[in-house]
Amino acid sequence: MPAYSTNMRLKFPILALTLEIITIILFAVFVDYDDGKHGGHGAHNTTHHEEKKDPLTLYPMFQDVHVMIFIGFGFLMTFLKRYGFSSVGLNLLLAAFALQWGLIMQGLWHLDDGKIKVSIFKMINADFSTATVLISFGAVLGKTSPVQLLIMTILEITIFSINEHLVAEILEANDVGASMIIHAFGAYFGLAVARMLYRPALRNSHENDGSVYHSDLFAMIGTVFLWMFWPSFNSAIAESGTDQLMAVTNTYFSLAACVLSAYAVSSLVEHKGKLDMVHIQNATLAGGVAVGTCADMDIGPFGAMIIGFVAGIVSTLGFKFLTPILASNLGIQDTCGVHNLHGMPGILGGIAGIVAVALGKKNGSAAIDCLIMKLPFWGQPPDQNCFDDSIYWEEEGEESLAHGDQKAEA
Amino acid sequence: MPAYSTNMRLKFPILALTLEIITIILFAVFVDYDDGKHGGHGAHNTTHHEEKKDPLTLYPMFQDVHVMIFIGFGFLMTFLKRYGFSSVGLNLLLAAFALQWGLIMQGLWHLDDGKIKVSIFKMINADFSTATVLISFGAVLGKTSPVQLLIMTILEITIFSINEHLVAEILEANDVGASMIIHAFGAYFGLAVARMLYRPALRNSHENDGSVYHSDLFAMIGTVFLWMFWPSFNSAIAESGTDQLMAVTNTYFSLAACVLSAYAVSSLVEHKGKLDMVHIQNATLAGGVAVGTCADMDIGPFGAMIIGFVAGIVSTLGFKFLTPILASNLGIQDTCGVHNLHGMPGILGGIAGIVAVALGKKNGSAAIDCLIMKLPFWGQPPDQNCFDDSIYWEEEGEESLAHGDQKAEA
Amino acid sequence: MPAYSTNMRLKFPILALTLEIITIILFAVFVDYDDGKHGGHGAHNTTHHEEKKDPLTLYPMFQDVHVMIFIGFGFLMTFLKRYGFSSVGLNLLLAAFALQWGLIMQGLWHLDDGKIKVSIFKMINADFSTATVLISFGAVLGKTSPVQLLIMTILEITIFSINEHLVAEILEANDVGASMIIHAFGAYFGLAVARMLYRPALRNSHENDGSVYHSDLFAMIGTVFLWMFWPSFNSAIAESGTDQLMAVTNTYFSLAACVLSAYAVSSLVEHKGKLDMVHIQNATLAGGVAVGTCADMDIGPFGAMIIGFVAGIVSTLGFKFLTPILASNLGIQDTCGVHNLHGMPGILGGIAGIVAVALGKKNGSAAIDCLIMKLPFWGQPPDQNCFDDSIYWEEEGEESLAHGDQKAEA
Repeated sequence: MPAYSTNMRLKFPILALTLEIITIILFAVFVDYDDGKHGGHGAHNTTHHEEKKDPLTLYPMFQDVHVMIFIGFGFLMTFLKRYGFSSVGLNLLLAAFALQWGLIMQGLWHLDDGKIKVSIFKMINADFSTATVLISFGAVLGKTSPVQLLIMTILEITIFSINEHLVAEILEANDVGASMIIHAFGAYFGLAVARMLYRPALRNSHENDGSVYHSDLFAMIGTVFLWMFWPSFNSAIAESGTDQLMAVTNTYFSLAACVLSAYAVSSLVEHKGKLDMVHIQNATLAGGVAVGTCADMDIGPFGAMIIGFVAGIVSTLGFKFLTPILASNLGIQDTCGVHNLHGMPGILGGIAGIVAVALGKKNGSAAIDCLIMKLPFWGQPPDQNCFDDSIYWEEEGEESLAHGDQKAEA
Repeated sequence: MPAYSTNMRLKFPILALTLEIITIILFAVFVDYDDGKHGGHGAHNTTHHEEKKDPLTLYPMFQDVHVMIFIGFGFLMTFLKRYGFSSVGLNLLLAAFALQWGLIMQGLWHLDDGKIKVSIFKMINADFSTATVLISFGAVLGKTSPVQLLIMTILEITIFSINEHLVAEILEANDVGASMIIHAFGAYFGLAVARMLYRPALRNSHENDGSVYHSDLFAMIGTVFLWMFWPSFNSAIAESGTDQLMAVTNTYFSLAACVLSAYAVSSLVEHKGKLDMVHIQNATLAGGVAVGTCADMDIGPFGAMIIGFVAGIVSTLGFKFLTPILASNLGIQDTCGVHNLHGMPGILGGIAGIVAVALGKKNGSAAIDCLIMKLPFWGQPPDQNCFDDSIYWEEEGEESLAHGDQKAEA
Repeated sequence: MPAYSTNMRLKFPILALTLEIITIILFAVFVDYDDGKHGGHGAHNTTHHEEKKDPLTLYPMFQDVHVMIFIGFGFLMTFLKRYGFSSVGLNLLLAAFALQWGLIMQGLWHLDDGKIKVSIFKMINADFSTATVLISFGAVLGKTSPVQLLIMTILEITIFSINEHLVAEILEANDVGASMIIHAFGAYFGLAVARMLYRPALRNSHENDGSVYHSDLFAMIGTVFLWMFWPSFNSAIAESGTDQLMAVTNTYFSLAACVLSAYAVSSLVEHKGKLDMVHIQNATLAGGVAVGTCADMDIGPFGAMIIGFVAGIVSTLGFKFLTPILASNLGIQDTCGVHNLHGMPGILGGIAGIVAVALGKKNGSAAIDCLIMKLPFWGQPPDQNCFDDSIYWEEEGEESLAHGDQKAEA
């Protein structure tokens, strides 16, 4: 099948090495250590902690966000029975590239003596741009090649940084937890890509498009780390002091309320009132997404809880009723259901104006993006190899021999 | 079987939604952000860091404790071969509700202008009350329904907050790491519930009451995170400065010594000197429990090590010899052996007077609690479905189809 | 087989208990809490944070390092299909003993009023000495008994502390991230032990010397936590302020660049351009090792990236081409390939003079060490039981019954 040349032998190494070398050159030209003199993005904040505190004040929160990016997103996607290597492994690859690319793309808007001065604050923002890529990755999980994903990363980060600049600096919209500019943006960008990559043959589901007992437990590692550290995600770049405490408190209680409504609705809609692991793994986090934008506002802990409570219901219902419709009627095969975890809760969390911007961005960007990604040359997997590590990963042990290598010959 | 109406379709969703709505209303009436003015519980401490530091000074330690609650307890219980979904999933559900309920119950003793001012300090204390529920959950793991567990949570948290108030404020007993008011209390409360829920049919063990290779590895994730962050658990609410460093140091070395003695005794009592994963997963943590009460006292690092050393021996011997006796003679089926990890080490760690208080509380509370929980209406699982996720969880993949859904029809 | 008396019944418990009792006595005599008055090792640093900050300033970074030691190293080694219990379990045992022994051995060089004053700073250094033991453990993984490993720990920590003293204080060589004195030292010490324990019968590999699908996912938990927290490892003991930020930044970008080159080369050398989990689990971390020594130097972020980029290539090529040669030609059976992750990158990171020291130490020490370890009395496992938990661990469930206990009878 010329359209599915899945041999990565040359195209992947060449692309990865080229991108990294270009990135290193850009760093040599533009990036320097933060000397604590200036602020750049978030001056108030940076200046603030540069003067009063040591430059590593934000480091613990940065590490929490980092755990969400690499363990949280990485393991949340391991729920697929045969796609765990790619979920954690490609998550690591994309995140490692995205945080470098994100630092450059975001930094170019805030040059300081012609340099991007790296601070923990800037590293947190780079992790935020990385999050959008990983959210989109969830929508196309199992159906794309590493090459396609690296290209998606370049395009999405670039568009994200422009969008973020418009929203945050030009429109001066408040979006601390970034319900819209991170979650909704990442979700709809991913859904648009999924739509362009629509595979009619996968309409009647795929044998590997499901979980086994232990893969669901691996996914819960991701869920729980995302759940625990979300308060850091929503408060890391807030004004330190009362605002930051407010952001932590609101996110914390929004998530707690979200868990109860997600569990309740999951039991309500499943046969015999059982719980569905897909809902538990995802909908319990919707509260963190939805409260993001107003995390540092004085909405009161109960206000945050109402947002989380509603988010948990909307998200669970989305998984149960909306996802099948999107797949069958609109041809959007959203592997991880990012529309239910990041899309709708993101909109719920954002304000109408920002919704418009994000939705606009998505349509605008996606066309170009996916047109490029459709080129067969990049070796996306044939349908029967979707959701299967063996096409891009070496495997050991009988289980994988049985499961994997024959397939790979296909 | 009318006594085992395990269909959660209506009773669980209604209970969960009702509880969350009530909680939100209580938050609307009583809870507000901490403005840093007053202290409430642990005034010295709060005032101290309110004036000198930013309100998030305790945040890193809070997150460590949080990881213990959600990852530590959650995964420690995944050792059962067919009960991993419930272990991590119900742990998340109970903890999410307990920390809200705990904040209210504890806060009502320390109203400040008629409000509970939420601070990181108060959130850590809410996590402590949550720990007692999760410890009790371990004792009845696999034999209760989500509905029963939510009711147990309400009762246990309420009683805990009264007990804590008596011990800490009336008796003014020092129990920083809370060997007694958290660990022993949680353990004996759970054992009492287990006794009330005694199932003669499970006397000759149950096919699912055991582990498989990978379920034991998942449990080790919980063990190691509990072990690493225990110093934060025992020092988070200690006076910052030397006291806090002392609490960290004592807990750290008590745990280290405990590992050596637990491994040694495990090898000593097992056939051919092999190690038993149950001992390694649990007894290695007894040092953290036992050193809790005197963590911030000047007992010297070697004093802490002696406590941990003894705790490791006592705990391992408990698993080997005491647990079977409790089950066969007293009808106490302690699924996780919380008596060996939290009960005896908790007593070892506490002082006689506090022991009396905790034991008194346990007896008093448990009767009412379990009388209520015994009502068949709440759909606890029939014996043959104990330790099986499939009765309350949707499952995917052949493994679970084979294993699960027939059972569910039972 | 007298040479393989693998029954640990008496020899292990007696050794473990004796070592712990001796350690407790040493603590009673030498160890006291840090009163913040003096500095000892790293005086500048300690004094600095003792005077200006509270004694727990380094605590968050200490916990990051701690997670690397217990979760990172522990789970990274669970890739073997039948050796997960030992990987995580013995990692916990050795680390728990090593950090106590390391604190004494390192502290004796810096007595303060005849006491070792325990501070977070000293606890971090104890974790560093622990790291060397765990690296060596990786080289002999699956082929040694707990008794042999405890003896290796005593010897290696003792030699490490002397070596560290020489390098850091006499030669006054800068080795913040300790590419050489930790990574290269640990690697070559382990390789020397592996050489002494050479098993001709394992030349044609062993049925258990490989992974299965889920064991590779458990290993990724270790990889990702090591990757995320490596910046803490390389910056924890750096001068706080700009130096520390520099160490974080350099390590962060070195690791990011390393990921792309490791993935690229893995795909380049594997058949059909697939990725090899062994490379992903290990080579992606080489950037952290290699940048260690100059982490706090002003090499520029791009300089750090070049180091990481090269390290990723060298490490991956080492796994593919060098490891087989070491095994077949030199009789060095390096189970985890520590030579590729810690050895070569460590040298790459170190300077020539320090290389000489480390290599010298290795040869010198190893001879005595392994001569002792070769004594049959300590019950190393017979060849057919290598890489098999069942020889030292009790197991449950059919899988293990089938797999394990017959073996154990052998």
